[in-house]
Amino acid sequence: MTTPASAPARIYTAALVVIGDEILSGRTHDKNIAQIATWLGVQGIRLREVRVVADDTDAIVEAVNTLRLRNDYLFTTGGIGPTHDDITVDAIAQALGVPVVIHPQARAILHDYYTGRGSELTEARLRMARVPEGADLIPNRYSGAPGIRWGNIYIMAGVPHITAGMLDALTGTIEGGAPVLSATLGCWVGESEVADLLAATEKAFPGVQIGSYPFFREGRTGANFVIRSTDEATVAACSAQLTQVLADVGYGAVEGGI
Amino acid sequence: MTTPASAPARIYTAALVVIGDEILSGRTHDKNIAQIATWLGVQGIRLREVRVVADDTDAIVEAVNTLRLRNDYLFTTGGIGPTHDDITVDAIAQALGVPVVIHPQARAILHDYYTGRGSELTEARLRMARVPEGADLIPNRYSGAPGIRWGNIYIMAGVPHITAGMLDALTGTIEGGAPVLSATLGCWVGESEVADLLAATEKAFPGVQIGSYPFFREGRTGANFVIRSTDEATVAACSAQLTQVLADVGYGAVEGGI
Repeated sequence: MTTPASAPARIYTAALVVIGDEILSGRTHDKNIAQIATWLGVQGIRLREVRVVADDTDAIVEAVNTLRLRNDYLFTTGGIGPTHDDITVDAIAQALGVPVVIHPQARAILHDYYTGRGSELTEARLRMARVPEGADLIPNRYSGAPGIRWGNIYIMAGVPHITAGMLDALTGTIEGGAPVLSATLGCWVGESEVADLLAATEKAFPGVQIGSYPFFREGRTGANFVIRSTDEATVAACSAQLTQVLADVGYGAVEGGI
Repeated sequence: MTTPASAPARIYTAALVVIGDEILSGRTHDKNIAQIATWLGVQGIRLREVRVVADDTDAIVEAVNTLRLRNDYLFTTGGIGPTHDDITVDAIAQALGVPVVIHPQARAILHDYYTGRGSELTEARLRMARVPEGADLIPNRYSGAPGIRWGNIYIMAGVPHITAGMLDALTGTIEGGAPVLSATLGCWVGESEVADLLAATEKAFPGVQIGSYPFFREGRTGANFVIRSTDEATVAACSAQLTQVLADVGYGAVEGGI
């Protein structure tokens, strides 16, 4: 049986739980939301919701159990290091109702990593081989300690460049749908002046979303309009129409945005 | 009746809902989480949880109603502009079960703002005077359109410098408790080498949290240890003890962090 051409494309969604007091204190500026959102977009997966929670077991359990059930995928960042404040693995195991075990391959990776540097695999470092029972590993090319996959949950590092390496390792391994495509039109106009035009244009193209992102730059007011759809021809047609209606009221739109 | 000296200080908590497809698409890097977290810390309020949700009524309603009830304060950012994708006010009014009304003072502010610039208060711009019934306004010194307070909910702009102006206007108006104080010690050490020392030191100082934030810089591994408590003397004593135990195993700690 083939899928009828008119069937709507399946949409794959993901959620992200950012775990860490350092984000909630304002000390550290999160970089993982944008990094993971962008990566997911390329895989054809939409980041639908994000929660930032403290290093607190109950908070992690609640977020993980709510979000893993209503999304195709759940990613977490942070709290998988060797210190006492790294409680992500224990909290997720509790959420799943499975014990925490030492993953033999993770132990071997850590053993090789530390002995190869003239050091040793201490008890504290062995903490980084602990996983919820039944987990697979996600390679970490930078610092030995692997990420963890359990079912549809991907447990990643908090340090952004290590997270990036883990995402690289996962590229192409996770099933997604049609990526969301977008075109951006920039315009030196106050968005309130063309609000009706934007709404009418969006309405004329089913399945399209037009986002309006105002800015103030060089002493002038402007806005970027981002047209999103999974269909390339639709994005192009909507972009052309919006350019035309903006020109009709005297505003030149800049392709690619300002 | 006086409060016994031993009574634990009341802790004030806040949650933040960041509203916007542009954050979830990865197009825009959020700056409001860190900005609001830092500002709340100074007010003696702890940011306990953050959710990032799409421009979607159901998602906003769920987040607002869950978080406003279990925190002293709820902040939202984004979605209060004049365009069709700005649905925050309608969604929050729905969450609260109250109608949306035009706030007379907001209408007057917007009227003065636009006529003062040789323009006029159009229908689209009047959208920015809409509030959940019963709301007060939060001044916006930059672009006219005010923020909104309803009960313990503070509805703010998404553009970070406008949010900053609204936070300035709120400074000193919201009741908080004792601010969380912190000291940072930086050390050129792999955190896994001193994990046990960190845990033991934290345990020796009830009410203290020690966070460990590893980094890799100048080809070397290091970590910053952040000691947090509401009591200044306790932070100082814990910091001194951690410096000593690190020195005992051969590591010099740098006050203020690396």
